[in-house]
This record gives sequence, structure tokens and C-alpha cells, in this order.
Amino acid sequence: MYHILASEQFSPQQLEGLFVKADAFRETDKNIGDRREVMVRHFGRLVVSMFYEASTRTKFSFGIAAKKLGISVEGTENASEFSSAAKGESIEDTVKVLNEYGIDGIILRTKEEGHANLAASVSKVMVINGGDGKGEHPTQAALDMYTIRNEFGRLDSHNVVIGGDLAHGRTARSLALLLSKYPNNKITFVSTPELQISEDIKAKLREHNTQYKETSEMFDALRDANVVYWTRLQLERLNKEEQLSLGQESFVLGAAALEVLPKEAIIMHPLPRQGELPVTTDDDPRARYFRQAGNGLYVRMAMLDDNMQDLA
Amino acid sequence: MYHILASEQFSPQQLEGLFVKADAFRETDKNIGDRREVMVRHFGRLVVSMFYEASTRTKFSFGIAAKKLGISVEGTENASEFSSAAKGESIEDTVKVLNEYGIDGIILRTKEEGHANLAASVSKVMVINGGDGKGEHPTQAALDMYTIRNEFGRLDSHNVVIGGDLAHGRTARSLALLLSKYPNNKITFVSTPELQISEDIKAKLREHNTQYKETSEMFDALRDANVVYWTRLQLERLNKEEQLSLGQESFVLGAAALEVLPKEAIIMHPLPRQGELPVTTDDDPRARYFRQAGNGLYVRMAMLDDNMQDLA
Amino acid sequence: MYHILASEQFSPQQLEGLFVKADAFRETDKNIGDRREVMVRHFGRLVVSMFYEASTRTKFSFGIAAKKLGISVEGTENASEFSSAAKGESIEDTVKVLNEYGIDGIILRTKEEGHANLAASVSKVMVINGGDGKGEHPTQAALDMYTIRNEFGRLDSHNVVIGGDLAHGRTARSLALLLSKYPNNKITFVSTPELQISEDIKAKLREHNTQYKETSEMFDALRDANVVYWTRLQLERLNKEEQLSLGQESFVLGAAALEVLPKEAIIMHPLPRQGELPVTTDDDPRARYFRQAGNGLYVRMAMLDDNMQDLA
Repeated sequence: MYHILASEQFSPQQLEGLFVKADAFRETDKNIGDRREVMVRHFGRLVVSMFYEASTRTKFSFGIAAKKLGISVEGTENASEFSSAAKGESIEDTVKVLNEYGIDGIILRTKEEGHANLAASVSKVMVINGGDGKGEHPTQAALDMYTIRNEFGRLDSHNVVIGGDLAHGRTARSLALLLSKYPNNKITFVSTPELQISEDIKAKLREHNTQYKETSEMFDALRDANVVYWTRLQLERLNKEEQLSLGQESFVLGAAALEVLPKEAIIMHPLPRQGELPVTTDDDPRARYFRQAGNGLYVRMAMLDDNMQDLA
Repeated sequence: MYHILASEQFSPQQLEGLFVKADAFRETDKNIGDRREVMVRHFGRLVVSMFYEASTRTKFSFGIAAKKLGISVEGTENASEFSSAAKGESIEDTVKVLNEYGIDGIILRTKEEGHANLAASVSKVMVINGGDGKGEHPTQAALDMYTIRNEFGRLDSHNVVIGGDLAHGRTARSLALLLSKYPNNKITFVSTPELQISEDIKAKLREHNTQYKETSEMFDALRDANVVYWTRLQLERLNKEEQLSLGQESFVLGAAALEVLPKEAIIMHPLPRQGELPVTTDDDPRARYFRQAGNGLYVRMAMLDDNMQDLA
Repeated sequence: MYHILASEQFSPQQLEGLFVKADAFRETDKNIGDRREVMVRHFGRLVVSMFYEASTRTKFSFGIAAKKLGISVEGTENASEFSSAAKGESIEDTVKVLNEYGIDGIILRTKEEGHANLAASVSKVMVINGGDGKGEHPTQAALDMYTIRNEFGRLDSHNVVIGGDLAHGRTARSLALLLSKYPNNKITFVSTPELQISEDIKAKLREHNTQYKETSEMFDALRDANVVYWTRLQLERLNKEEQLSLGQESFVLGAAALEVLPKEAIIMHPLPRQGELPVTTDDDPRARYFRQAGNGLYVRMAMLDDNMQDLA
């Protein structure tokens, strides 16, 4: 049994183990007979899903993942308001109580950075970090890596363009760190100077000898890319000026951008999107972002399947 | 596979097919052995329940219907606040992502008219409209028809009084339209002049040669009725003056009204109710509104059972 | 079939019946094979969980209890806002409709005292009161008693210290009443004069010849105790002055208090806690409050198991 707390905890070997499982679950999901066999596998297990912050994709894909594995789910999507948190209970107390309920795991989404670690520090059953504020979102990082591996059959030797609000974007940061664990990946960070990737990430890339560039010229960057990872402007985290600085056409992955992008490239986006990714791009054969979201289901099934406590 | 989007989409033949199934599910629900047989039928299936607006009855009856059929349910009852909608995601993007999660259907309640159609336009799995703002509520319309058919064994040749705030009441409008698909039904609309049934409905009734009258005299109307369909004053949709105009005793289905109503008539109401239907009426042997609500379970079971995507 | 509405409804015989079942469920929960056997027991059953007020512990432990028994659960954790209650529907109407959905029970948490009784008065299936405002919380009372019985093997002849805000604390009041049904229990109520246990409780204790004392001297009280039941300051129910009067070190169950407490005593608390129970106390071998919370799962499994409607 292990906790899933930070994207950097995964070694390439561990990820590959999860991805092989995810491949298998993608196949068994197509067939009702296979689905039924998978559903009896963890019959008798139960996980708790505690969401202190909004998140359709993470909540739904984990909830569906558990149910498709035959794991019962008890949970709340509004823990801040409708749980003892409203009465001032600490995350540790909540987790200690949940541990007494004969459960096999806790899926946790918090507003506060570090709360998943606090939860894990007192939990006897696995804690999966479904996002802790500005902190980590390791299951998103894993599904992003799975998407690249699933499309190209490898995780090394990619030319990856990561764009958007990189100063605040958790998913962009995690993807860069995980890519640095594989040889020969080159990363180009595309953003305005104010919203570029932060120094701590760049230091880690240098440590791993991963080549990277920073630029605000999207078109130049796209010309050599085989993976484009575009991200949302997290308007809720920005002030007005920063919002304006990103509202430029030069960061929109639309028709003009698609023209310079190589034919064999893929386009990813963690969704939800805003103006940076127009719906017209959906019809482009290189668009993979909806499939990417769907990959989250199978990667999360793999994580849950891997990670149940021992029971006699 | 088909979507359920608007009450008018149902032909009498389709409705009767659903109602025969509903009858069967009402029977199997009485017995634990039969319940168990029904529960294995769709084991391995999963539907998503997305509610962007409050609704106990629709949410609960669909959730219970799915679970009684052995279908897993993942969902949210507060999609507006706790989903990506809060980050500005379009309904189409949400549906496209859900389609990637190996699901067999989406039950959708939205605030905005037309959103169920938008959802269906991008969905590979069935979308069931559980109410789209001022738009359609086809499963309510179907259960209303089922109630009449269940009580009388037929859907033609009824003398139906439909009363309340007909200008805004979605259920009253749909019921009138569905009744017009059967021969010899007569409808009397009872309301104040300001809140009478709208012209588009009357035009459709004329097209189908369905006789109708408009009146504000409840007592006159009740004398010949065999079905009374009374509706709530949707106070939240009215201004002060309109509220006052309806607050008259002459629209209350109480003791005096019950005296003039024929013995063999039935009283329906979509619930929740306000002053227009006093609790003293509950003891009247003609009251059917709680049973009507319960019919919603079995009609919705029939719809879900009918309507799963093909899987190998 | 019976409703669970008030802690006083339980006779010692009934409680012991539930506790024997709870013991058994605690055992079967340790083993995946046994868990699976329990889960098929009520396959085909369904309960509704209606929470009009926040409550992690009660909601989660009931939801988990039902699922571990193989009972399907449909529910809402925010009934006030997202159900027909928002449209002014009475609790009786809501319950009458739910009764039509082929359900086997209703678990109800309300803001208003007396609503569980109203619900039971119109329900054909069991209603379990999961807390009705300032009223009753009988399942909490039962799990508190179970904890004492589980630790000592008996429910008589205890020396129980009950402390905190006793004027408003529902759990403290119910525990005192249930203890009075067993011989030779002595109760010491520790609080400020303003927040002491109310006269109605004391009258009942005298009626049952249960010895009790009132004091504001925590240390004196602890010296002879074998059960300490400490409770939260319900700050949300107090005015500023009352809050201040309780904020004194003399009501904190910390290191100094632990020194005077006998070695064989146990420390209970209904949780969540505030300053009255420091986290440093968690490491004390006498602390039982997390286990106490967990006991709630098994007692609630016993209640649900006991209490399904008859079906052919």
C-alpha cells in the first residue's frame, strides 16, 4: 500500500506498471462481460471521496473508476461546507475518523496546499491526492504522461511545447518534471514573461539535463513540436493586468497555429478551456484533449486497483 | 439508442411500450427475489446524473431507478457550483468529456432552456432531459400520462381539467400536447386571464382537433372532469401582482371543490404544492398525486432499461 | 419494523441486541470474504439519506453502513437547498413521495426539532433520526453506550464524568438519560453554572434513582471517574459571553487533567472537538474517541440490519 501525493514520487518503472494496467482496463471497458468480471474484483471494498473544492473531472473519473472496479464509494463533493470542517475540524481528525470506518482508501481534494500530506501522515489506508490547492495534482500528471505514451509508445525523445499561464498552472509544472525523468526530451515553455515557468522547475530540469527554452513566440515554438500541451488561463488566480497580458491572439491555438504545427504532433489540454483553445480546433485530427480526459479514468482505475490495503 | 429530450417526441406506440415495462417494474419491485433479478440485468452499466438545478423528485427517482436496475450512478446535484461549469466550461465540453468515461447515459437537469439538446448534439450515449429551465421535462410528461393510463386503462376520451399557473407551468403544457395525440380528449384550462395557457399550445391543440376551453371558473370546470391536473403557483417565476392575482380561494382544490367533482375522477398534481392543494384533500379517495410521483420511478426505470448503448 | 427517533426509546434489552450485532459486524469487517457475505445480505434493498444539515460523521457512517450491508443508497447532503424544501415543501410531503419509490428506509437529518417525528408519522418504512436540530440524536447516544459496554463489558456501576457545554449539548443529555436505565451509575456533570445540565434531565435521573453531582471543578471530578465524556463547546449556539465563560483552562482535558485521571478510565468525545480536547491527549492510552467514532459504523449497521420492511 502506498499513498499518491506528488507527481515526482513516480519512477518511470512505476508509471509503466500503472500504464500497462490502464491499457488493460481500457480494453475490458468495451465489453459488458469483461466489465462484469472487473466489477467483482474489488467487491467488498469501499473508498471515501472527500472534495473540499470543485472538480468535475477528478471527482467523476475517480468515482467512476472505483465503481467500475466494484469498489463502493461514500463521499461528499462539498466537504468545506457540509462536513465537520465547517465546525473547525482539522483534516487530520477527519482522516483519523474515516480510518475507523473500515475503508480502503481516501481520495482527497483540498483547497489548502499540503493537506494531502497531512492526511497521509495519520492514515493507515491509502490517501490519493486529487489536487491540493496550488500544490500537487499527481493523478493529472500521470494521465498526461499516459496520453503521450499511449499515442507514441514512448516517453523519451519528445519535443514538447508547454504553453499558457505557467506561473500558476500546476499541471504544466508537473508534466515538465515528469518528462525530465526520461532521456532526450526537449521542452519549450511558451508564455508571457510574467507568467513563465518558475525557477524551481527550471533548476530541476537542469539537474536532469533536460533541455528547455522559454519564449513568448508561440508560432516559432510549434514548428518543431510533436506534443503541444496547452493550458487554461487560470483567471481566478490572476489580477486584472496579468489577465490582460495573456489575452493576446498570440496565445490562441487556433487555425493559424494549427498550420505551422507538424502533422504527426498531438494537441493536449487538461481542460476546462477558455479562449486559448477554440472549439474549431476540436475537428483537427491532432486534437487529443478529450481522449486525454478519458485516459484519466483508466489511469485512476489502475491506481485504485494497485493500491488496496491488505485484508485477510 | 435514443435521446429523451422533449415530450412531443413520444408517439402513442412508444409511450405504451414504456408503460408496459413500467407496469412490470412496479410488480417486480414488490418482491425481494424479483428485485434481485432486475438488479443483475444491467450490472456493469453506469450512468452520470448531472443536476445544475435543484430537484428532489427527478434526481431521486432517476437515481433510484438506475440503482434498482443495477446501473451504477456517478453524479453531482450541484453542477453549477461544484463542476467545471463554475470555471466557464460549456455543456458540450462537459458532455464530450463524460463520453470518454465509458458511461452508458447522461441524465441532465439544467437551468438553461436548450441545454439538453446541446448535450445530445455531441453525445454518443443517450441523454435524458430531466428538465431544462423553462423548456421541456419529458419524463414528467410521460409519468403524468402513465398515471392516467394506469388508472383508467386508456389515454383517449378523457375530460381533463388543467389548472394553475399555465403560462409558466412546463408540466401543464406538456400534458396538453401529449393528450392531443389521442382521440376524443377534451381539455379545460383553468387560470386567471394573465396566467392562461399560451397561444402556441392552443395552436397545436387545434391542429390535432383536440377540443379545449379556457376559463377562470374552477367550479364549473370540475363538474364534468374525470381527470383534474392541478399545478403549483411557480411563485419564484412571478412578479408580485401576478402572485396576488392567483392567491384567490377560487383556485384552491379544497373541500368545496371536491364536492362538485365527479366520484370517478382522479386528482393529479406534479408536486411540490403550495396553497392551491390543501393537505385535507390527501384523504380524498380520488387523490392520486403521491401515487403519481411514485409512477415516476417505474417510468424512469423503463426509460433507462430501454435505452442503453450497445456493448459487445 | 420500527422507527429510531429518540434515545429514550431503547430498552437495555434492545440496546444489547443491537450491540451483539455490532460486535459481529466489527469482526466480519476485517476480512474480505466475510465482507462479501455481509454485502449480499440486503442486496435489493435501498434506503434514502436526506440531510438538511451538515454532518460528516453521521452521513458517512450511515452511508458506509448501508453499502457494507449491500443496501443501495440514494440521497442528498444538502436537502435544504437542493430539494423541494427550497420550494416550500413540507417534510411530510417529501416523505410521502419517498415512500412511493419502493424504498426500505429513510435516514433523516434536519435543522428543525421534531421533524423526524413528523416524518415517521406519515412513513410506512422506517425513519431513522440522524439528528433533529436541538432535539434528539439517538444513533449517537447508542454508539456512546456501545463504546462503554465494548470497553468494560457492562453498562452499570460506572462513574461517569460528563463535561462541556451541557446546556446545549444533545449528546451529553442523551447519554445521561440512557445511563440512568442501568443500576449503580453515578454521573458528575462538569460545566460552568450557566451551561450546566438542565432541570428536565436531572428530574429524570432522580426518577431512576441515578446519583448525580454538578460541579465546575474538573480536577475533583476526574479523580474518581472511569468514563470521561467530554464535549465540544457548541460555539455556533452560544453568545459571546457564554463563549468566554467556557474558554477557561479549567475545562481543557490536557496534560494536567490526564495526571489526575485513574489509569483504567477511558476518554470519550463525540467529535468534532475544539480547544477543550488538545491533540496531545490523542497519544494517551486512555483516549477512545476515534474508536468511539468508528463504533458508530457498526452500531448503525446493526440498526439497518434490524430494521428492514417486510418484503415477500
